[in-house]
Amino acid sequence: MWTLDHLPVQAIEQQYGFTPDAAWTDKVMHASVRIAGGCSASFVSPTGLVLSNHHCALSCVEQLSSIKKDFVKDGFLAATPAQEVRCPEIELNRLDRISDVTNEVKTATAGLSGAQFRDAQNAIKARLTAACVGDNKTTTRCDVVDLYHGGRYDLYQYHRYQDVRLVFVPEKSLGFFGGDPDNFNFPRYAIDMSLLRAYENGKPAVVKDYFPFNPAGAQEGELTFVIGNPGRTQRLLTVAQLETQRDISLQHLLLNMAQLRGMLTQYSAESPEKARIAATDLFYVENTYKGRLGQLQALQDPALIAQKQQQEQALRAFVAKDPALSARVSGAWDAIAKAQTVYRDIEPDYQTKEIGIGFNSQYFKIARMLVRGADERARPDEQRLAEFTEAALPQLEQRLFSTAPLYPDFERVKLTASLTKLREILGTDDPFVKQVLGKQSPEEVARQWVAGTRLGDVAQRQSLWQGGKTAIAASTDPFIMLARRVDPAARAVRMKYEDDVEAVEQKNAELIAQARFAQLGDKTYPDATFTMRLSYGEVRGWSERGHEVPPFTHFAGLYDRATGAEPFALPPTWIAAQSRLNPQQRMDFVTTNDIIGGNSGSPVINRQGQIVGLVFDSNIHALGGAFYYDPVSNRTVAVHSGAILQALQYVYGADHLVQELTVPDMH
Amino acid sequence: MWTLDHLPVQAIEQQYGFTPDAAWTDKVMHASVRIAGGCSASFVSPTGLVLSNHHCALSCVEQLSSIKKDFVKDGFLAATPAQEVRCPEIELNRLDRISDVTNEVKTATAGLSGAQFRDAQNAIKARLTAACVGDNKTTTRCDVVDLYHGGRYDLYQYHRYQDVRLVFVPEKSLGFFGGDPDNFNFPRYAIDMSLLRAYENGKPAVVKDYFPFNPAGAQEGELTFVIGNPGRTQRLLTVAQLETQRDISLQHLLLNMAQLRGMLTQYSAESPEKARIAATDLFYVENTYKGRLGQLQALQDPALIAQKQQQEQALRAFVAKDPALSARVSGAWDAIAKAQTVYRDIEPDYQTKEIGIGFNSQYFKIARMLVRGADERARPDEQRLAEFTEAALPQLEQRLFSTAPLYPDFERVKLTASLTKLREILGTDDPFVKQVLGKQSPEEVARQWVAGTRLGDVAQRQSLWQGGKTAIAASTDPFIMLARRVDPAARAVRMKYEDDVEAVEQKNAELIAQARFAQLGDKTYPDATFTMRLSYGEVRGWSERGHEVPPFTHFAGLYDRATGAEPFALPPTWIAAQSRLNPQQRMDFVTTNDIIGGNSGSPVINRQGQIVGLVFDSNIHALGGAFYYDPVSNRTVAVHSGAILQALQYVYGADHLVQELTVPDMH
Repeated sequence: MWTLDHLPVQAIEQQYGFTPDAAWTDKVMHASVRIAGGCSASFVSPTGLVLSNHHCALSCVEQLSSIKKDFVKDGFLAATPAQEVRCPEIELNRLDRISDVTNEVKTATAGLSGAQFRDAQNAIKARLTAACVGDNKTTTRCDVVDLYHGGRYDLYQYHRYQDVRLVFVPEKSLGFFGGDPDNFNFPRYAIDMSLLRAYENGKPAVVKDYFPFNPAGAQEGELTFVIGNPGRTQRLLTVAQLETQRDISLQHLLLNMAQLRGMLTQYSAESPEKARIAATDLFYVENTYKGRLGQLQALQDPALIAQKQQQEQALRAFVAKDPALSARVSGAWDAIAKAQTVYRDIEPDYQTKEIGIGFNSQYFKIARMLVRGADERARPDEQRLAEFTEAALPQLEQRLFSTAPLYPDFERVKLTASLTKLREILGTDDPFVKQVLGKQSPEEVARQWVAGTRLGDVAQRQSLWQGGKTAIAASTDPFIMLARRVDPAARAVRMKYEDDVEAVEQKNAELIAQARFAQLGDKTYPDATFTMRLSYGEVRGWSERGHEVPPFTHFAGLYDRATGAEPFALPPTWIAAQSRLNPQQRMDFVTTNDIIGGNSGSPVINRQGQIVGLVFDSNIHALGGAFYYDPVSNRTVAVHSGAILQALQYVYGADHLVQELTVPDMH
Repeated sequence: MWTLDHLPVQAIEQQYGFTPDAAWTDKVMHASVRIAGGCSASFVSPTGLVLSNHHCALSCVEQLSSIKKDFVKDGFLAATPAQEVRCPEIELNRLDRISDVTNEVKTATAGLSGAQFRDAQNAIKARLTAACVGDNKTTTRCDVVDLYHGGRYDLYQYHRYQDVRLVFVPEKSLGFFGGDPDNFNFPRYAIDMSLLRAYENGKPAVVKDYFPFNPAGAQEGELTFVIGNPGRTQRLLTVAQLETQRDISLQHLLLNMAQLRGMLTQYSAESPEKARIAATDLFYVENTYKGRLGQLQALQDPALIAQKQQQEQALRAFVAKDPALSARVSGAWDAIAKAQTVYRDIEPDYQTKEIGIGFNSQYFKIARMLVRGADERARPDEQRLAEFTEAALPQLEQRLFSTAPLYPDFERVKLTASLTKLREILGTDDPFVKQVLGKQSPEEVARQWVAGTRLGDVAQRQSLWQGGKTAIAASTDPFIMLARRVDPAARAVRMKYEDDVEAVEQKNAELIAQARFAQLGDKTYPDATFTMRLSYGEVRGWSERGHEVPPFTHFAGLYDRATGAEPFALPPTWIAAQSRLNPQQRMDFVTTNDIIGGNSGSPVINRQGQIVGLVFDSNIHALGGAFYYDPVSNRTVAVHSGAILQALQYVYGADHLVQELTVPDMH
């Protein structure tokens, strides 16, 4: 998971005889694109066509659907540009420039700790991003990126696209063929793809750099690159932090997800329309559940913790031998361990009041954005909560003013469940719980608040946003009143978390990062931070309990696996197309590339910079990849470039898209 | 948790100046009674009246209810004996005699291990219980009880009552006032009581020993005894076994319970009738979830594991000093640790195929009893699976031929969810999963099987039971066919578990028990085994984060806490009775008695052998009691004897029951 400005060129050259030069790297950087909500993607035509996963566009497809027309079930194909429909909440970011701002950030926080450290860091970040964005808020996005847990700070400048339109998705039954049972498994038979298009000034964006398709794909053993935005790895965390993950964070997350999953599954069984409404939430919950369960199991392996302890001991021993380094760094591990104790104490409050386990409803999220936004925007940019700084507002406003429909019954059900969980975790007699519920039950207040709110109306949100503090103070909307009522307690525990946990972890992780640089040099990559990384690897199967898993699947296997029942049911289009498809066409494949959540939608390219596949999953072994990469069995799962073209042509008759995807690259 | 034949008389005398003599102990033993399904109770009148918890009778109350008359919601009161209604599945056991059979058991298994150890142990147990029961199968029940994990084997002879009738329960809103949020908490305001009556030959059973009520209850600091059947503690397990609990068993149980809870909660929200049908399952799931989560959190406390490691090291050091003891015992801990590794490997198979996570439906449970019963009853008693031995059949037949209604829609929903979980845990491509589902989905097969089964009909079950192997082989009932199909694989993993895990644990725990006796003498009590134990303690509050929790609550507090919304809503009877009740009457209270699940329904008695309370819960700190007893904060929660009498008299007008409960004890 290398950053684009520090590729391990020599290692790639030695292993594969290929040297990525500056032009290659530059093209790769500009042809790749990030979906701000949490996925990866790439430009695949000179007129702004973007390739990503079905599941990365799923929330958009659902938001565009209704009880009358369900694009999730039936898929979507724009026959002409005029039929391309804008996604309410998708923002694309193309990385244009990386600059090192380590000195600026470290100078600003030198000698500080706790709340002062946090405030100073927030302030310098706000200054740097504001200067980077300048007057181009709508088209430029800048983020200060923390690499190696404070070892390096970079300023990433992106071109921002907020007008993103849906061009094509297959039916979900193909996009997610095999469903939850097959998720994180292989062999797989999914066409987990979507095509979007970036627009500027109402017209398809013209882009210089894009990846053309190679219909033949990559062969077994061939070098493959994955470029994308892996979300979060924890490979450099201390043992104490990993134990917090194992004993607290993952446990509580999984239990909450499991209960939510049971509820959403039963809700979906009540009617097809309810299933449609709950689909995105259920997918998110099941995917997260399975992924995090794999992480927990990895952390419960005594061998993993033993290895991490050994590495930590070695680094601490290295530090102890150097008096100057030791004087600065040796206390860092204990300081982080102490912050874990603080976290364990505040975790129930933090999760319920601030992170949202207690208030799982879009209405509440909107209300909190409005209430906090009114307070925060009245402050100088440098003193705001990070998500309300000027540089962050365009993405927040896109979500806040999204035209995506809200379903009151579904919101009521989710809110009831989460208010019940709030009471369960904090206790009936907790003052915060009493402040929220009064003498009523979760069912009663959820029913009343959902019935009484007007936040489903975008115009109402705009008016409250523009009205600022006065409008918020005057509002009698039940969710605005709730968000106002709980904000002091929620902010208090957030501050406690940021000051006594996060700031301590950051400050001391910076010290550990310095020690690690001193020990290992920079021949290591930073933990994933949902920013652009390149991974090199090759097409290769693996050995599973003594039998070999081949790296490719084929269309023939899809028809073998189909049962007629979800999630193994084929839609009519695919049943009708069987005779037109080559049964030996490769469909999905695995590579040794190192990825993690956030990499979904990443292009798999060959050394010529051509698309040979589309990342959509990893195998079950790769879930431990949060903590270490194991080349023996960790595998990336991708859709084959040839399968995408065949499907577009022979199943969907989208010849115009096939043509656009196979325009020769002129650069 | 002392056994009745080894009470710590001296310790009680020293601490409280009271000496339980043989007559006192004898009376306590015979006035106490066990509900075979998993609760405790006591005789409270000479004509067989039995006091237990509302939640211990809940399944009966639900089984007697229908869409037309909901006794769960409205409560039940038999105004005359003729109105007392038989519970379909309740069996009561009164302990009559304890005999030591350690020599017989140990002689039979001497020198054996693995499958041979298990078979020999099953055989000797079957012989001992068969001889004990003799010809009185319907009225005598005998169990070989394993104490100190093989340190001692006792033969317990019970008088068995299978005709048990419902006399009184309050509304569930009182029986479980505060619901899940208040469960395992204090202060509490529940009247978690039921009155049953044991019948013999169609008439109320006449009993010599019973506990009369003391309306004044016990005072703060007063000595209290709890007699009951604590289900299972794990205070003597090895560290390796505790780690299996922490990392595997509790984790998986909790995740499964959480998902089931979400599903049942949403199902219950669909209609009042569905809520009624799902109530017992939901109560069981929520109660288990909260209890086991407390256990997991106790095990995740590094101090607990450190203390257990220290004790284990001390015992191992003690063994190492004695060459003869060491030669026999020193390998025991490693052998148990190795069995844990085996268990971790087979756990997914064992839980899904044998324990029932994969087939959560009453229809399947019945089908498995029938299919296995046909095979097992054809074998000699000594070679059968434990639950099919002659001594065990009466309880099994009571469950198998229960007239409790089954609800097809509910069974379908539970089965669908569990088949989905089966596929999730074992994987879509697992041969067992394919054998179960074929090319269909969990939804499809569950719908077909539930629609096609006739096992809801008791006569059908009787006919298949009586028809034995021939009838089973000829049956085309979908659940019989399923149970037949999966039985080889289910039995195989059960044998693997019993031979390579359970038998290894038992054999080596026997050795460790010998070492512990050598180290500590028998001044310690055995782990709980759902057999009769006595705990002594006193009425006392505790200190919670710096503030004192008083030991009593009062009726006034109930009316303060009521909100009108479940689970804090009062039924009309209690609203109407408020003016007749003394607001200062003590309602619930806490004691330092040491209890655990299975103790529900236990009488709290004073030194005179009078009822002063009724155990129904413990506080949250007592959940760690599975692993150690902490006198500082572990508390038993009970209903006050005076509150029971006041409620019967002034809320329910059950003067005849008050009179019966206050008959002076003539013995």
